[in-house]
Amino acid sequence: MRPQIVLFGDSITDQSFRYGGWGASLTDAYSRKADIVVRGYGGYNTRWALFLLNHIFPLDSTTPPIATTVFFGANDAALLGRTSERQHVPLEEYKENLRKIVHHLKECSPTMLIVLITPPPVDEEGRLEYAKSLYGEKAMKIPERTNEVTRTYANGCVEVAKELGVASVNIWSKMQETQGWQKKFLSDGLHLTGDGNRVVYEEVIKVFNGVWLSASEMPLDFPHHSQIDPHNPEKAFQQRCL
Amino acid sequence: MRPQIVLFGDSITDQSFRYGGWGASLTDAYSRKADIVVRGYGGYNTRWALFLLNHIFPLDSTTPPIATTVFFGANDAALLGRTSERQHVPLEEYKENLRKIVHHLKECSPTMLIVLITPPPVDEEGRLEYAKSLYGEKAMKIPERTNEVTRTYANGCVEVAKELGVASVNIWSKMQETQGWQKKFLSDGLHLTGDGNRVVYEEVIKVFNGVWLSASEMPLDFPHHSQIDPHNPEKAFQQRCL
Repeated sequence: MRPQIVLFGDSITDQSFRYGGWGASLTDAYSRKADIVVRGYGGYNTRWALFLLNHIFPLDSTTPPIATTVFFGANDAALLGRTSERQHVPLEEYKENLRKIVHHLKECSPTMLIVLITPPPVDEEGRLEYAKSLYGEKAMKIPERTNEVTRTYANGCVEVAKELGVASVNIWSKMQETQGWQKKFLSDGLHLTGDGNRVVYEEVIKVFNGVWLSASEMPLDFPHHSQIDPHNPEKAFQQRCL
Repeated sequence: MRPQIVLFGDSITDQSFRYGGWGASLTDAYSRKADIVVRGYGGYNTRWALFLLNHIFPLDSTTPPIATTVFFGANDAALLGRTSERQHVPLEEYKENLRKIVHHLKECSPTMLIVLITPPPVDEEGRLEYAKSLYGEKAMKIPERTNEVTRTYANGCVEVAKELGVASVNIWSKMQETQGWQKKFLSDGLHLTGDGNRVVYEEVIKVFNGVWLSASEMPLDFPHHSQIDPHNPEKAFQQRCL
């Protein structure tokens, strides 16, 4: 059975197979080597994600994923008293929930590569423009998320990763290294453009390549077509997979 | 466990998670409902594909895919005596191999939705241009595939589908309904552009929607976030998945 890499997260994971999405790019990169399995839940925060753990990562699985990305926080960081407050999770609880997720994954498989991804930065102006495009004059006048508060969640995510000895990708910081990140990487101030997806893909694959999960070093599942003798095809398949 | 839809084919399936790819679009369409599993083998013909059947579709599986697309023929139709002749499979054998594949899939699961996809049309000029861009003056002077020969394979594919009572998508015909299909849908005379991928996606999803595999009628795996009471999240999860 081909190894699995699970992408666990919120809408930014759920939408990762749209045009130029980071999940689709990973699927292409691990073609014939590993299956990318998307488990993205739009609108979810870490508190609600905990209810899914036993279902998505059953502890008695004989074939747990070899790697999992955990990409939450954009919803946890929604502000109290604003339009998305129902999704808010306090920072300390967010960190504790991430710890619970990591502990569960390690219990599921002690060798699983775990990569925590921070929420992306927030373009507050972009959020307001997007709300206005949807609701006109009835749109919110102050953003439901701020970049500064999301920074504290991003830092919390990196801290938990260090504390538990797992990998992390700080997308919040990485994206802001580029001039014009607000429109270049974010389509509505929060979700990713094609370029934004590219950043996530490149950062995640960098982590994968840095350990034992480099696609170029993994074997193909079956012979490359150039290795098949057209007059004796059985031979290639006997050697490789029969 | 979430149902699986397998995409079984050659390079046109293997590359279906590149920018705008039809496999990625299917993954997005079945988000939280079914997993799209890509089993694409660049350069393979149906003769070589037979060696993979027992591995990819083991007959003793307790969770066989609910649907499979079978997308071969572009390589089978390579001409004898030209640069890709090693991939050539005679038309009658191609049809017989498709029958073997369908019989195996039905044995794997009698309820599996099977969709045979014909090879796409061939833009012979595009093939020559592509070869020249790679090999310059050393490039082949006559194309290794012709649209006319590929037509006979496309027809053979549709005939086998009818004979065995499974669905088919005639991409060869469908694409040629559009003016300028040669460059609009094919990047190198054979493989698909973003627009070409869109055609395959739309034709395949049309078949899926026409039967019991319409994504809009399939339940979400877990509650939509709007159904979760932030003060009592357990409730939504108890109803839906515990």
